[in-house]
Amino acid sequence: MNMDIAAVNALPYEDFVDILGNVVEKCPIITAAVWSGRPFLSLAALEAAISEFIDALPESGKEGILRCHPDLAGRDLQSGSLTRESHEEQAGSGMGALNSGEASRMARLNQEYKERFGFPFVICARMHDKENILRQLSARCQNERAVERARGIEEVKKICHLRLQSLVLTDNRV
Amino acid sequence: MNMDIAAVNALPYEDFVDILGNVVEKCPIITAAVWSGRPFLSLAALEAAISEFIDALPESGKEGILRCHPDLAGRDLQSGSLTRESHEEQAGSGMGALNSGEASRMARLNQEYKERFGFPFVICARMHDKENILRQLSARCQNERAVERARGIEEVKKICHLRLQSLVLTDNRV
Repeated sequence: MNMDIAAVNALPYEDFVDILGNVVEKCPIITAAVWSGRPFLSLAALEAAISEFIDALPESGKEGILRCHPDLAGRDLQSGSLTRESHEEQAGSGMGALNSGEASRMARLNQEYKERFGFPFVICARMHDKENILRQLSARCQNERAVERARGIEEVKKICHLRLQSLVLTDNRV
Repeated sequence: MNMDIAAVNALPYEDFVDILGNVVEKCPIITAAVWSGRPFLSLAALEAAISEFIDALPESGKEGILRCHPDLAGRDLQSGSLTRESHEEQAGSGMGALNSGEASRMARLNQEYKERFGFPFVICARMHDKENILRQLSARCQNERAVERARGIEEVKKICHLRLQSLVLTDNRV
């Protein structure tokens, strides 16, 4: 794929949402909303528009974004119902190849995290291996809710950054 | 299905989003966000929370919601890729059984509408038959953009109302 930003700016909203609609997991409304702000001068400007849209949401909306994310090594991975992007990211960080001890530890910590915060543990899996993910999950279970909400949204933006980079050329300005 | 509101309030967010996530078409973030406000005293209170979340979005976010909606009698109906809810609604209003004159008129007007406004024509199909839908589509093409944005969002709320009623019992208070 890898269109340049000029090609992205020329897309009708339907194609824009088809191609970029999952840069924030299961939140095509965000991509569809920022289309209103085209043309974008650069990929960075498109990314900034997405980030600003997210930041302007009420706290419940930010929690809503987190709740649209699957568990790591959770039921959607088992059942094959992850989005294509999530599947690649989880597989790449070893989530599909946990040994039984790791798998049960991950399941237990995911559950603990969700019960404590009311949203799932979100981390940019591409930037971590499985040991690191387990360590961070365990540590982040101890945080305050507001801290974790903000932290989860930071991770959403990192995931978005990498997904955008896989779709749009970066070194190109119109 | 048809749970009562007490059963809805008892759902973990994952089940809440699985069951109610498409009451606003392809916008599970909205359902996922309002889960933060549970318990709801009634179905009407849940519906009001969704409505308030939508109203608090910036205008681009409202346009984003509209852009997550498929065309009536459009490519997603032809290709079988509508959501279950949209398929039932479009089929019920005769969108799958247009004669060739109606189909080409619908396609032309949908295109005209999208080019004029940058979002699709949205109407609560269950409340109209195909003649009425074609008449309204033609008339609404003449409106101002801001009028149509607000009008589309009104229709989104009507669709949401009927989708909620098919999932949650109405005459029940906790």
